[in-house]
Amino acid sequence: YTRAEVARHRTPSDRVWVTYGAEVFDVTDFVELHPGGPDKILLAAGGALEPFWALYAVHSQPHVLELLRDYKVGELSPEDTAPPAGDTEDPFAGDPPRHPALRVNSLKPFNAEPPPELLTQSFLTPNELFFTRNHLPVPAVEPGSYRLRVEGPGGRVLSLSLAELRRRFPKHEVTATLQCAGNRRSEMSRVRPVKGLAWDIGAISTARWGGARLRDVLLAAGFGDKTGEDGEWHVCFEGLDVDASGTPYGASIPLKRALSAEAEVLLAYEMNGQELPRDHGFPVRVLVPGVVGARSVKWLRSVVVSPSESPSHWQQNDYKGFCPSVDWDSVDFRAAPAIQELPVQSAITEPRPGAAVPAGELTVKGYAWSGGGREVVRGSWARGWAGGKGEAIIPSFLLLFAASPPPGARLDIVCKAVDSSYNVQPDSVAPIWNLRGVLSNAWH
Amino acid sequence: YTRAEVARHRTPSDRVWVTYGAEVFDVTDFVELHPGGPDKILLAAGGALEPFWALYAVHSQPHVLELLRDYKVGELSPEDTAPPAGDTEDPFAGDPPRHPALRVNSLKPFNAEPPPELLTQSFLTPNELFFTRNHLPVPAVEPGSYRLRVEGPGGRVLSLSLAELRRRFPKHEVTATLQCAGNRRSEMSRVRPVKGLAWDIGAISTARWGGARLRDVLLAAGFGDKTGEDGEWHVCFEGLDVDASGTPYGASIPLKRALSAEAEVLLAYEMNGQELPRDHGFPVRVLVPGVVGARSVKWLRSVVVSPSESPSHWQQNDYKGFCPSVDWDSVDFRAAPAIQELPVQSAITEPRPGAAVPAGELTVKGYAWSGGGREVVRGSWARGWAGGKGEAIIPSFLLLFAASPPPGARLDIVCKAVDSSYNVQPDSVAPIWNLRGVLSNAWH
Repeated sequence: YTRAEVARHRTPSDRVWVTYGAEVFDVTDFVELHPGGPDKILLAAGGALEPFWALYAVHSQPHVLELLRDYKVGELSPEDTAPPAGDTEDPFAGDPPRHPALRVNSLKPFNAEPPPELLTQSFLTPNELFFTRNHLPVPAVEPGSYRLRVEGPGGRVLSLSLAELRRRFPKHEVTATLQCAGNRRSEMSRVRPVKGLAWDIGAISTARWGGARLRDVLLAAGFGDKTGEDGEWHVCFEGLDVDASGTPYGASIPLKRALSAEAEVLLAYEMNGQELPRDHGFPVRVLVPGVVGARSVKWLRSVVVSPSESPSHWQQNDYKGFCPSVDWDSVDFRAAPAIQELPVQSAITEPRPGAAVPAGELTVKGYAWSGGGREVVRGSWARGWAGGKGEAIIPSFLLLFAASPPPGARLDIVCKAVDSSYNVQPDSVAPIWNLRGVLSNAWH
Repeated sequence: YTRAEVARHRTPSDRVWVTYGAEVFDVTDFVELHPGGPDKILLAAGGALEPFWALYAVHSQPHVLELLRDYKVGELSPEDTAPPAGDTEDPFAGDPPRHPALRVNSLKPFNAEPPPELLTQSFLTPNELFFTRNHLPVPAVEPGSYRLRVEGPGGRVLSLSLAELRRRFPKHEVTATLQCAGNRRSEMSRVRPVKGLAWDIGAISTARWGGARLRDVLLAAGFGDKTGEDGEWHVCFEGLDVDASGTPYGASIPLKRALSAEAEVLLAYEMNGQELPRDHGFPVRVLVPGVVGARSVKWLRSVVVSPSESPSHWQQNDYKGFCPSVDWDSVDFRAAPAIQELPVQSAITEPRPGAAVPAGELTVKGYAWSGGGREVVRGSWARGWAGGKGEAIIPSFLLLFAASPPPGARLDIVCKAVDSSYNVQPDSVAPIWNLRGVLSNAWH
């Protein structure tokens, strides 16, 4: 079989085919027997099993492969076992391979999110499934010749190799969630069209990050003395990712946050114990916990301490919030502050909207998070059906509930979270609608 | 006339009487001519003008008194010009006199708020009108013998006189808003009854505070070394106000906030350039900007650095938020964190609900604020009537708009605010209802 033929078998009605190595299997009859649930095995339908088995170690047992052999229906054509050659004219031709489970919102530049049901499969999102928000082609960086330029007031400059960054500054680790400003934008588009990628609820992920504290680097460079003087100063970042004119991606954060020990801003070179994947900023990215993902600049080439915010398009004319009444004729990007800390958020990952769920006890999963270092102190979910109504407490990012709706009921499930400043999610989407579809955090 | 006779004349239909010194005036015909508006002069109806004229300096011009003389109708009875003698058995007998404009929610202990239209008369709330939230009788403190006890780990103690607190530590000034957790509780009671004082929208006020930084005092006492060790430490405060059993009011904040230069926590002895009024904690109170008023302990007698939160009733079993489904049978106060930072808030102060407003251009006033040092970055108000709808931006605490509804229209005005973390007020009250009626911050 060719890979194209395999790819046509993605649903039980078309038969569910998968590959492992050069072998092809029809696992239709195993779908309902899959211990992880039929929805999880269907993520691999029409393609290779290896990327999924690599993520979930339970598959690396001999009996799993034995079980699979029972379903073999053939082999891949020899000419179809090598990857296709790249297009050298395409600026995105050098982009890295991606995990097939990612839901792609844009291929070039690459923007993709994990399926909701994989997002809450584990507290830390596997690197391969971490949501990816690229603005430009992924740069190819040679780690041996990489230099980070750190520039401060008076033109003073510090230049660091990757080895120096690792050696000169203590490695600090922090578990932090990144969220795109556009997470849940697709719900906003249903109110009125907005400009932007149609993110579902998966433009949010959590990892354990390791790297040098930005604070340590700035203090070592002698740039720690500007806080509070002459108004607010900023730290501007530029990436090695550039557009056709050579302009890089850029963004900034307040210097006060960069210098705060508590804010734990990193120049990260590790993600979940591995070196940064190319899609997530190899070899070095900024990591600003509690702040919109757009400020955590990837493929970092420069850090500039400045009296002004980054002049970048993405700092000045994007990633800002507006009233529902502001349209593209009336919008004045200078009138709104750049988004930094994000508001309280939560969403339900399982079951999916419209899904048929088994009668009896039901497990609902979801996530809850808030920006600015604020904890989620409480969440509630309400379930409703004819004659039934309830509410329960959710304690943390990964949530499990049990309830017993009557068989045949149409079930409405809503969740909302409260953070440690007792901010709550707004009841509905329309009053927070904005032309860029950012900050979509109504009850889910 | 007796004061009781004067007090019966409070509305235009009963005639509007006021006193100035020992003279009585019928100002009914002047009400509509009052340059500050009829609503403002009616605040003094049935009582003395002096407390109001003292607040608004525009009245200290000779022509104002000349104008008043035209309306004289008589004089107060001589026996009615002295204040009534106090009841010495009453623990509240020593409470100070209060401004007659305050709307009293509870007399003993004294709890009162400024009328909404006076709240936005000026950015800083005059001391006489600042909302007052007392839990117990006001203690009578002799400033010469006052001592503040500051106690840290290992039983180390620092004792400070008022003069030492002023002399040994630099005076730091901060403009900060205090809000009671129960502000706007009366709106929550309309959804379902709650326990607590029926605050309208005035349990929030702003002042310029002066005092020693708590950080400076703790560092001078050698108590600055506990942050980050052994989990979170706390700073517990006790007041000189005590109940019948001798138990004082108490509360605590995290040590991290107390030591933060940015958080600007004060041991305040000045309020709007004057020494603290007795109702607001004379001679020394805590002032914790951005945090629920309950932690800004008044009549401060002790500061204790401790590995635990304050054991006080008001820290442990009050001032906490719960789900709407939690009732007095199911509530577990240990399950919820003590409220510290407050969420984003706004309300309309003028016009008042149900008021008839003149046709043509309309001025709407209100306030907007957020906790935790977060700025209000945007507000919106929507006005609606048959055939009309609009939205406008509000930039700061004191807000002015203009709009032109058609004559005879029934006007609905709604406001909401957005803070610098892009948290918004929730759309409606019912989903944030809680049994203590705290954190009431839905759209107003």
